[in-house]
Formats: sequence, structure tokens, C-alpha cells
Amino acid sequence: MLITKTIAETRAALGKVRSEGKRIGFMPTLGYIHEGHLTLVDIAKKHSDFVIVSIFVNPTQFGPKEDFSAYPRDFERDRRMFDARGVALIFAPSVEEMYPELELIKFQIEKMSDHLCGERRPGHFNGVVQVVAKLFNIIQPDVAVFGQKDVQQLFVLKRLVYDLNFPTKIIMGPTVREPNGLAMSTRNVYLTPTQRAQSSILYQSLQRAKELIQLGERRASVVIAEMTKMIQTATEGRIDYVEIVHTSDLQPIETLEGRVAIALAVYFGKARLIDNIILDINEKSVSEMPTGD
Amino acid sequence: MLITKTIAETRAALGKVRSEGKRIGFMPTLGYIHEGHLTLVDIAKKHSDFVIVSIFVNPTQFGPKEDFSAYPRDFERDRRMFDARGVALIFAPSVEEMYPELELIKFQIEKMSDHLCGERRPGHFNGVVQVVAKLFNIIQPDVAVFGQKDVQQLFVLKRLVYDLNFPTKIIMGPTVREPNGLAMSTRNVYLTPTQRAQSSILYQSLQRAKELIQLGERRASVVIAEMTKMIQTATEGRIDYVEIVHTSDLQPIETLEGRVAIALAVYFGKARLIDNIILDINEKSVSEMPTGD
Repeated sequence: MLITKTIAETRAALGKVRSEGKRIGFMPTLGYIHEGHLTLVDIAKKHSDFVIVSIFVNPTQFGPKEDFSAYPRDFERDRRMFDARGVALIFAPSVEEMYPELELIKFQIEKMSDHLCGERRPGHFNGVVQVVAKLFNIIQPDVAVFGQKDVQQLFVLKRLVYDLNFPTKIIMGPTVREPNGLAMSTRNVYLTPTQRAQSSILYQSLQRAKELIQLGERRASVVIAEMTKMIQTATEGRIDYVEIVHTSDLQPIETLEGRVAIALAVYFGKARLIDNIILDINEKSVSEMPTGD
Repeated sequence: MLITKTIAETRAALGKVRSEGKRIGFMPTLGYIHEGHLTLVDIAKKHSDFVIVSIFVNPTQFGPKEDFSAYPRDFERDRRMFDARGVALIFAPSVEEMYPELELIKFQIEKMSDHLCGERRPGHFNGVVQVVAKLFNIIQPDVAVFGQKDVQQLFVLKRLVYDLNFPTKIIMGPTVREPNGLAMSTRNVYLTPTQRAQSSILYQSLQRAKELIQLGERRASVVIAEMTKMIQTATEGRIDYVEIVHTSDLQPIETLEGRVAIALAVYFGKARLIDNIILDINEKSVSEMPTGD
């Protein structure tokens, strides 16, 4: 496994790979890897011949009051885990390498960051789009894999690729869960044992939402009310949001139809947990959006 | 010479070129070609093995009161001229092909569009950056050539490439001039014979600015005043601006030093003519920035 720190050596290494006719699969990360990331590596391997991951805690996607400095980092551990899983190259640049000067050309996002996490984290998705556009231009991957758990990120980036014609296919990887249903996340390290136990209700509420819709419910407000009640009854968590949006523009909808994301964010102490399901809804059927291709 | 109308056929054609190990040179245009464009083709040929040009009157870079509909178009003439000059592929997409849906991910430009033409054409450079980012992602050129005449566009796009790590090298081509010094432009067709004759003062004023600076003048205000007087004395043209900016961020400077652009825009009737020179200024020497590499 190769490790690169600079853009120039990364491009040189990938130029060689590309000249051999190999397809490049990419997964950007903030590091502090868990099984959720490694499952995405497996998917990248299925779709490419050479898997590159980046480890970069991107300052431009953290708000001034967010946990940029405290965000957990352990390069040695990440390196071992990626190596064992068959990653071919880790790109781990410094902040100075990625942002040598104050940037003057930035992104503006319409509609897609107005709700869900975007509403609570102003500027977050601008930073995500910026760093992913940079990484795509450095790596020029054929495919890039993003987890369903960060559903708003996934669809904002799909829109980035669509609106700006990036020559990279975005693949959605599944949310990997703990035995109790809790979606894996680096930030789960912040949970107490009690909070961890209570957190199982989040996925249960999403499954209940799916059940209600399969039984014929089409009013978003009724589904959201039921989920809210479940979470409030079973936990001390503080709901940040429970929302249902269209995946095309991430705008809330009232009558459920087409491809929708049911998404939630709940604070357990200082940990903010997010989760979602994506449903394809028509008159005759309700099914989860497939992952991995 | 190939002609493509869709993104898919363009990518297919270029994929083949790339797999043969050929370097791709690109020049985007709005069409209605003149010798200025063809000189840029020559430069692209020097730096690559396969030259592709685009012809696309991009609606997102025209203001609501600008000449998008009236902008001159003549594909047959352009096709013949490019063919004769050795262009290998013309990409001429429709507006629907480039913008199939309302775009949600756009660009935000800090500082660089606050002065010069950007100040007078709000949104213009956002549209330029958007369409060039799209074209770069579709074509993935090794080099792209832009004319010095549109100096703000040139440095905004250099900054786009720098800030977002596009794997394309931007090369500045020279401004090609009529015998009287008028910079070639598609919009020169709007000039009357009298206006055309008077327009020679624009380049003369730029040469006078260079002379003053070579003689030791370092106060931007003095240089600008001299140019303004020259233009106002010799023509009926209405000055839109005469400004001197640093090329790194396109902010006005008072004391001349480093790489600066001396730029002007003057209305002759309905034609708005722009021109500029770029100088490298230090204590011991003053020279024009070289073009073509």
C-alpha cells in the first residue's frame, strides 16, 4: 500500500495506474475508520481495479463552534485497517497542501443545503463540496463511494457531479449498523453506555416510518409525528430534526411520492446522531433504494 | 475534423484520443471566430496533439440586459475556419445539453469579480466559471488556452484551476490586433468606420502607460489620469473604466509593483471595447508578461 502526502506525488502515482488501463475507485474520509468505511472500501473494490482513500479532516466543512480540533485522529490505526482491507493508496495531505492560500473561488449551493443538517450547519456543505471537488480533480476517479448515512452529503455531491459534469460516478454504500441498529459513526465514541443503548430507537423509528408508508400512509406530517413520539418516549435524546425530503433537491414534501429520504438528527448529550432511510414510493409499492451500485 | 453535439459522444471521442497517449488542447469560444481565436488554436497545437474547440453561447454569463440573443452566430463559417486551421474536434452543444435542469450547485467568487468588468456585469464571471468548469470536466484537457484580451476572465479561471486543483494547465494567448492597434473582438462588428478609426487610442494609451512606468512612475493614479486624458481628448468614446489591479486577486493597487494588469473598457456607441496590458514591475525593470506558455 502506498501513502502519499502531496498532490504531485498522488497524481504521479495515479497517472501510472491509469496508463495501465486500470479503473480508479475513491473514498474520501475524515479518518478514524470503522466498519462503515471498510464496507465502502469493499464496494469501491467491486467497481474498480485500484482503490484510493483520502484521510483529511477538512477545516472548511467545520463551523467555528464545531469539533474540528477535537475530531478523533489516529493515522497508524487507519493505515493498518485500510491496508488489511486491500486499499492500494492512502492520500493524507496536510491542511497547507490542500489550502495553500485563501480560496477565492468557492461554491454556492441552492436549495439542497436549506434543510436537514444544512440548516443547522451553515457553510458545512459548501466546505464538503469544495473539498470533494478538489479531491476529484486531484484523483480523477472513475467511481467514488459515499455512505448512505450522510444522506444530504450524498445527494449534494450527486448534484455536484450532475450540474458540473464531473467524469466520476457516485455510488451509494449502505449504512453499517451496530447489533442494536445504531448507525456506525466516528462520533459514536462520544456516547455513554446508556445513550448507546437508547440510540436503538432511531433506526426503529425509521423502520416504523417505512411500515406506515407500506400500509398506505402518504402524509409526511403523520409519519414525522409518529417517529417523533417514538423517539421522545424511549430516550432522553433531544430531537434536532425529523424530516422527509425529495432526494432530487432535498426540499421537504407533504405528500409522499417518488424517491424520498426520511432523515433524523438527535442529540444524545454532546453526540449528535444522524440516520435515514431512502424509499422509492409509488402507488403500488414502497421499497428501499438499493445500495452498492 | 469531428463535430460533436452531445457530452456523451464528445467523451467517447476524447477517450479514444487519450488512450492513444495524446495530449488534449482546448479552447472554449462563443463562436463567430476571428484571427484572435485562430492564433489561440495555433498555441493549443504547439502544446498538445489534439485540439478541441467548443462553440457555445453560454446563457449563464450574459446579464438580462446583455446581447445573448443578438450575439452573432455563424456555425458554417466557424467550422470552415477551424477546419482550415487544423482543429481536430468542434464541440457545439445545445443549451439543453449543457443545462438540462436548473443548476443548484453554482460558484461564488470572492474579490476577483469586484472590479473591472465584473463590477459592471454582475454574475458574468460566475457564469464563465460555471461553463468552463463544466467544459473542463467534459473534455479533461491537458492544456486550455485563453486570450489575454479578456484579462479578468483569464485570471479568474487561473484561480479556479488553482483553488480547485483542476488537472488542466491554463495558457495565456496574445491579444491579436487590427493594423491600427484595435484588439480583435467579435463585438467589433458593432463599430462604425469613425469609431473604428478612433479606437486606436485605446492601445496607444496602454503603451503610454507602460512608457510612464518604465520612466519610473509608480503611482497608479497618475498613470490612470494620463490614460483617461488621452482617451477623452482623442475620441467620442465614453470611458467605462481605466483600472490597475494585481493579477493575483484583481484588486486595485495604488503603488505599482509585481504583476499588474492595466485594463480599460470604453463604449463606442453600443460597442463596449476592452483592452489591457500585463506588466511585471520591479525596481529595476518593467516588462510585459509573456504569452503562449
